[in-house]
Amino acid sequence: MNSGNAPTMKDVAREAGVALGTVSKVINGKPVGEAYRKKVEAAAKKLGYQVNSYARGLKTNKTYCVALVMPSLKNPFFAELTNALSRSLAAHGYRSVLMITNFDSDIEKKCFSLAAQHKIDGIIALTYCPDPGMVESVPVVTIDRHFSSETPCISSDNYEGGKMAASKLISLGCKNLLFFSTKTEVYSEVEKRGLGFQEVCRTEGVAFQTLDLKSGDSEVPFYRFLEQHIRDGVLEFDGIFCNSDRIAVRVQKFLESKGIRIPEDVQMIGYDGIVDFYTCQPVCSTIVQPIARMAETAVQVLLNQTESPSNITLPVYYLPGGTTRD
Amino acid sequence: MNSGNAPTMKDVAREAGVALGTVSKVINGKPVGEAYRKKVEAAAKKLGYQVNSYARGLKTNKTYCVALVMPSLKNPFFAELTNALSRSLAAHGYRSVLMITNFDSDIEKKCFSLAAQHKIDGIIALTYCPDPGMVESVPVVTIDRHFSSETPCISSDNYEGGKMAASKLISLGCKNLLFFSTKTEVYSEVEKRGLGFQEVCRTEGVAFQTLDLKSGDSEVPFYRFLEQHIRDGVLEFDGIFCNSDRIAVRVQKFLESKGIRIPEDVQMIGYDGIVDFYTCQPVCSTIVQPIARMAETAVQVLLNQTESPSNITLPVYYLPGGTTRD
Repeated sequence: MNSGNAPTMKDVAREAGVALGTVSKVINGKPVGEAYRKKVEAAAKKLGYQVNSYARGLKTNKTYCVALVMPSLKNPFFAELTNALSRSLAAHGYRSVLMITNFDSDIEKKCFSLAAQHKIDGIIALTYCPDPGMVESVPVVTIDRHFSSETPCISSDNYEGGKMAASKLISLGCKNLLFFSTKTEVYSEVEKRGLGFQEVCRTEGVAFQTLDLKSGDSEVPFYRFLEQHIRDGVLEFDGIFCNSDRIAVRVQKFLESKGIRIPEDVQMIGYDGIVDFYTCQPVCSTIVQPIARMAETAVQVLLNQTESPSNITLPVYYLPGGTTRD
Repeated sequence: MNSGNAPTMKDVAREAGVALGTVSKVINGKPVGEAYRKKVEAAAKKLGYQVNSYARGLKTNKTYCVALVMPSLKNPFFAELTNALSRSLAAHGYRSVLMITNFDSDIEKKCFSLAAQHKIDGIIALTYCPDPGMVESVPVVTIDRHFSSETPCISSDNYEGGKMAASKLISLGCKNLLFFSTKTEVYSEVEKRGLGFQEVCRTEGVAFQTLDLKSGDSEVPFYRFLEQHIRDGVLEFDGIFCNSDRIAVRVQKFLESKGIRIPEDVQMIGYDGIVDFYTCQPVCSTIVQPIARMAETAVQVLLNQTESPSNITLPVYYLPGGTTRD
């Protein structure tokens, strides 16, 4: 054995008393007689032989690495999704290369370019970059963002979720609805939440208004809008659907500071459904995204690379969480 | 150019009209005349040449990958720490290989073994595994867990944080204190929170009790203990320090369900100081860990590989958050 250095395949072959090719077959998972396999495995274990996956990466053109491109882990939805994606990838024998973009388009582009350079096997991206500079040679699966028919996009059933929220508020007695949403610079599947919501309002003949803000901006325009619609301590609207739990919670706090009671005076539904880490409760009544299933689906679609539909939407469900009268 | 395949260094050399060695120098950041550098860069850009970092990994024995071993991203402290570590590593030109252990010792061991196999440059680990099977050839920096004098450990100043919590509760008028903590299977730096707390109580002559639970178990024993110390609607203790914000919030909810008011009847301080994503407020009065600084320090210590002290503690501060009368 070459002294001072890590043992090589040659060392293992010598120790096991087999040909180098036999060691290679065992390491690369190719068919080989059971007795040979055992000899090689015992020798590898004895010498502390570690597979040099960089050499393997060169040879088989597989790195068993997938990049996870995420805006931030401060948002519990992104954190749980990353957690689930990383665990799903590990279960399939793949490692996760985490790339935090911090909502910065330039960082997103750099991520995609880095990804190509480092010969990862694929990318799972939640990105709002107008043009992340997709690399043809690297398969990509996106979450909530539809790039092209060649790039599968996984999302929760946003349209159905929006319908569900409107139907629930109407069935709980609301007569004058409001929809608050934040929109990203580029079109994202998330916008379907508002479309589904509006469809039900129209079908049911229930009055509604909508207000959109640019994602990342402060919520102050929401508060100003609400203030303009409070007369004698009463809000003109009795049901509010927000396109994230975060907006719902922040709007709730604002209304409560104005003496308006939730859910007695106004009922509210958010979207995401992450159970709060501190209280172990939902932070509001909400439409729950099936995070574990979204993650597992994204991983399977990426790794199988079979012909996938360009959009895969997964079912959501409603969960009461204290901001509705149910 | 070899048709159908990605361009190689040879293709770049031919296109630029320079020697292969010159291309190699440019790619590996070695000194070369400015005119040559420009020729090579233009040719690389024209051909869409991507550095094959696996070949580079083999040659320079550097992969520019660091494994982040984390229990879970569902805990906002772990999520923010991972976020900060990944961004710090990226700023230093390193990528993060995320490994979620889900508090499972076997998964932790597998992570360390995988790490060695895949020739990463280092590991930053927050691990509670009794024996993760450390690999001598891979430098490791730990968070909150001291392995040996050879492995630098980064933590917040847990001892000072515990002292700060006791001093604050005492200065706010508390006369009968309680300390609730969860302990991991192995000793962790986190236990110093209780030691600092107790030191101040003893020095100041203030009565205190402590109750430890095994980490991961339910908090029911805390609730049972509290129930036993409520007489005629009054809790025997008037100040509680919890070794995490999560326990503080859960204990607060329990006490409120028993009609005890926080902070009027009982004042509480937690530990961690993550600002709540939904409300943008601290979840309780708390000792704040300097996450960004802990992450940057961990990365610097790992990458510099200079002689580091085996323990590096970073200063904490107190932040009022509604569960104390300040």
